[in-house]
Amino acid sequence: MSSDRLVSRKNRQADTVVKVGPAAFGGGNFSVVAGPCAVENRDELIQLALQLKASGVQMLRGGVFKPRTSPYSFQGLGREGLQFLAEARAAARLPVVTEVLDVRDLDLVLQYADMIQIGSRNMQNFGLLREVGRVKHPVLLKRGLSATIEEWLLAAEYILAEGNHQVVLCERGIRTFETATRNTLDISAIPLVKQLSHLPVMADPSHATGRRDLVVPVARAAVLAGADGLLLEVHPAPERALSDGAQSLQPQQLASFMNGLPYLLQAREKCQAAI
Amino acid sequence: MSSDRLVSRKNRQADTVVKVGPAAFGGGNFSVVAGPCAVENRDELIQLALQLKASGVQMLRGGVFKPRTSPYSFQGLGREGLQFLAEARAAARLPVVTEVLDVRDLDLVLQYADMIQIGSRNMQNFGLLREVGRVKHPVLLKRGLSATIEEWLLAAEYILAEGNHQVVLCERGIRTFETATRNTLDISAIPLVKQLSHLPVMADPSHATGRRDLVVPVARAAVLAGADGLLLEVHPAPERALSDGAQSLQPQQLASFMNGLPYLLQAREKCQAAI
Amino acid sequence: MSSDRLVSRKNRQADTVVKVGPAAFGGGNFSVVAGPCAVENRDELIQLALQLKASGVQMLRGGVFKPRTSPYSFQGLGREGLQFLAEARAAARLPVVTEVLDVRDLDLVLQYADMIQIGSRNMQNFGLLREVGRVKHPVLLKRGLSATIEEWLLAAEYILAEGNHQVVLCERGIRTFETATRNTLDISAIPLVKQLSHLPVMADPSHATGRRDLVVPVARAAVLAGADGLLLEVHPAPERALSDGAQSLQPQQLASFMNGLPYLLQAREKCQAAI
Amino acid sequence: MSSDRLVSRKNRQADTVVKVGPAAFGGGNFSVVAGPCAVENRDELIQLALQLKASGVQMLRGGVFKPRTSPYSFQGLGREGLQFLAEARAAARLPVVTEVLDVRDLDLVLQYADMIQIGSRNMQNFGLLREVGRVKHPVLLKRGLSATIEEWLLAAEYILAEGNHQVVLCERGIRTFETATRNTLDISAIPLVKQLSHLPVMADPSHATGRRDLVVPVARAAVLAGADGLLLEVHPAPERALSDGAQSLQPQQLASFMNGLPYLLQAREKCQAAI
Repeated sequence: MSSDRLVSRKNRQADTVVKVGPAAFGGGNFSVVAGPCAVENRDELIQLALQLKASGVQMLRGGVFKPRTSPYSFQGLGREGLQFLAEARAAARLPVVTEVLDVRDLDLVLQYADMIQIGSRNMQNFGLLREVGRVKHPVLLKRGLSATIEEWLLAAEYILAEGNHQVVLCERGIRTFETATRNTLDISAIPLVKQLSHLPVMADPSHATGRRDLVVPVARAAVLAGADGLLLEVHPAPERALSDGAQSLQPQQLASFMNGLPYLLQAREKCQAAI
Repeated sequence: MSSDRLVSRKNRQADTVVKVGPAAFGGGNFSVVAGPCAVENRDELIQLALQLKASGVQMLRGGVFKPRTSPYSFQGLGREGLQFLAEARAAARLPVVTEVLDVRDLDLVLQYADMIQIGSRNMQNFGLLREVGRVKHPVLLKRGLSATIEEWLLAAEYILAEGNHQVVLCERGIRTFETATRNTLDISAIPLVKQLSHLPVMADPSHATGRRDLVVPVARAAVLAGADGLLLEVHPAPERALSDGAQSLQPQQLASFMNGLPYLLQAREKCQAAI
Repeated sequence: MSSDRLVSRKNRQADTVVKVGPAAFGGGNFSVVAGPCAVENRDELIQLALQLKASGVQMLRGGVFKPRTSPYSFQGLGREGLQFLAEARAAARLPVVTEVLDVRDLDLVLQYADMIQIGSRNMQNFGLLREVGRVKHPVLLKRGLSATIEEWLLAAEYILAEGNHQVVLCERGIRTFETATRNTLDISAIPLVKQLSHLPVMADPSHATGRRDLVVPVARAAVLAGADGLLLEVHPAPERALSDGAQSLQPQQLASFMNGLPYLLQAREKCQAAI
Repeated sequence: MSSDRLVSRKNRQADTVVKVGPAAFGGGNFSVVAGPCAVENRDELIQLALQLKASGVQMLRGGVFKPRTSPYSFQGLGREGLQFLAEARAAARLPVVTEVLDVRDLDLVLQYADMIQIGSRNMQNFGLLREVGRVKHPVLLKRGLSATIEEWLLAAEYILAEGNHQVVLCERGIRTFETATRNTLDISAIPLVKQLSHLPVMADPSHATGRRDLVVPVARAAVLAGADGLLLEVHPAPERALSDGAQSLQPQQLASFMNGLPYLLQAREKCQAAI
């Protein structure tokens, strides 16, 4: 990573800290973002947001514009989903992150969301990157499913180059030959990106593994690898989720994970202090 | 994984525990195996073994038959290297694991080693798998660099089918499109293999990352993902190692890692207990 | 491929034929599309277009909106480039295809181009797919660099589902572990897609190989695999091209290739007739 | 490829020609090697060999030691299969190539086979490479399923370095994320390896695609990419083959392919002559 790039650690030594209400990423701050893959239902979303808040989660996620492989799959609730997110945010006092797929939806989403997500498929949608580079909202930039680390950081550079330095990177698994999992979480990308860049890095073990039974161990691993946060899919009834049910935790599983999280963060600190 | 396979968790619910002197893997046991990629020098090896022992390492590794991409690279010391390993074992009271490449070397290696390593390139060398299936020594079976989990478990099945059930699996990174690291450690393979099989699973962050500066965070991640052990390359002077210097830790780095290890294992236990 | 999909061969047995002026793809028609990666210069473009026409090329390609990994690389001439393309089209009487990156540029590009290209990075830019599905222009849809064949056909389905059935698919290499070439042309995708779908399929050996010295043999291979057309990068002076010079043929190389093309097409016919 | 390597084209400009009875590879020679994946039955093998001979095939292939992912799959007939191969060779006057998996079987196989095959899984079985480097028989060296071109050429270097320069390389598909085909034939590897090395290069579209309906178009493509030969699986009744039936051609399909082959070779010559 060339030192004259805005994303480069050589260009800026101190960690960038991205704050979104009570959530903070980088500079020693760690936050969990959780919620359903897709917003489906107002009442369930509000109830789930309250449960997540009670579990210690710092931000709510939920998709309203869904990038679906097939044009015949559920595409998200759109504007109505944004309103449900806003209600859940108010009820649970949690900031909200949601994905924008199309530059033409950006203004609408900015009215509702606290943080804008750029998904894997749009990591090199350069027009969209430039537009989110011109707004004040922080951006969650997922790694493309076959993007190199260099390409990912250069995608972030598009955003920073327009003036928005509030970017959190998110490793969400890369496409490999292995078919036992949906993707392969590139665990070494976490410490490597933190060396190369001052931007915070999260991990998304839900999309990486695609399997509920692997999400928790991989999430724990990501914390110890140095992640600044986690993105976790949670659904009140994964078996009837309209999208990605197989990889969604149940609220109780998320709560158990959150109970163990302080031990992980303490162990990480102690390890770093051990000589 | 079909339930009638010997490696299958359905076939045998309890964890297999593999013990090699003071080292033990599986069933809650965790051990660190460390040492140079290649045995190069008697005195240095002995000194290193003493340092590793003092750091809390449970087993010494060191290659004497090296699988090298080019026929003109250093191929290992062979029989002489085995003698050095035996001396280091005696001096430090550490069991020794070393790789066998060729079935014709197996008898020789069995005289010196406590555990036999089958390397990535030989994961589907079926003649060799069958032969180590017929001996009493425990076997460390590395995943092929582009083997699926199914293929890896079936390679282990070749060993078990011959009667040797003392097999430890080792995830060492798979080949992907990413070139920033040597390979990509498949972190989710660790919990997944532990679900599918009763065999212990280790991780080798040295070969997976190929970079000294990433070995420690990835090693920590592997512990939290549920690994039963770690395989770490350590060299007294990595900059002059005849093989894999770039990924070898210095003894002091290994010692620091070992100091932090109890915190990781405690955190893992506490997380599993948290509800 | 489910038979009720619009792209499916089961849904429509006869080949779709896409015609763009003198160029035609599918149903036994074969055409070559050639030109520079990026439009750089009016006079050179016109001269090149005349050379291509004289060589027997049926369509001119040239990028004016360039998807570049780095925000600091040349991003294309935009509107001015479209005007140059229009002049070259008029001078050489060749239809023109150019890429659209951003839905907001679509109306502009439709005024100048005869065919719209959706590039690899936008294969799952679903908003853009829907918009080109609503226009009358034929669409050249490149495979994403790590898209499965299923995902690629479903991306085409987004276009057809909006009413535009004039889609030509283009295999342009997938991302693999091999670094000797830019990407790996998936040669078997050509006959496989032709089985699964009635849409025409082209190959782009320039992007697939990234090396001028491999373009011609791979182009020949693609013809014999059953491709309905080729997309070839040609630059009058590749060594000073602003983008992708290493993979651009010189006009004379393209002319030699075109001289051999009839032999390839005849051999293909004779092989299919041989019993 | 460093110029001081024995395999390098820089080291030896002229094509190496490998002759095995009536078959020849390289230096403008092209041969087809065909036969069943595994030798299963004496009478069928002899009858098939006669059919292949009548179709114009120059060499018979057939496996007697089969590298199988599972220890419970059919492992080949071993010595008995070698005797069947010898009988088929005599009956059809075709030279025979068969795979050696284990160095301990080499002497036995040398008594029966005219050419020794080293399979993908053994491309880096360095002991085996060295041993076949010390014999007089020509060697067919398949690319490992995730070997880079550099690694493949260095595997050949192991053989040449021991004195055996009669090596034919065989591209047989690499492992990628695409699951619609068994592997992905790296079509550009054919012209690239011919640039880098003086050794002949074949293609194996049967293993590359894993699907009978794709073998013929991919075989044609490989010829035009510059291959010096083809390796094709043929079985008298693919639906009851003990191994790889799905990718085996029927004898009549092979005959049709052979009828078309002269057109391909002529087109290749004419293309190379076209200026």
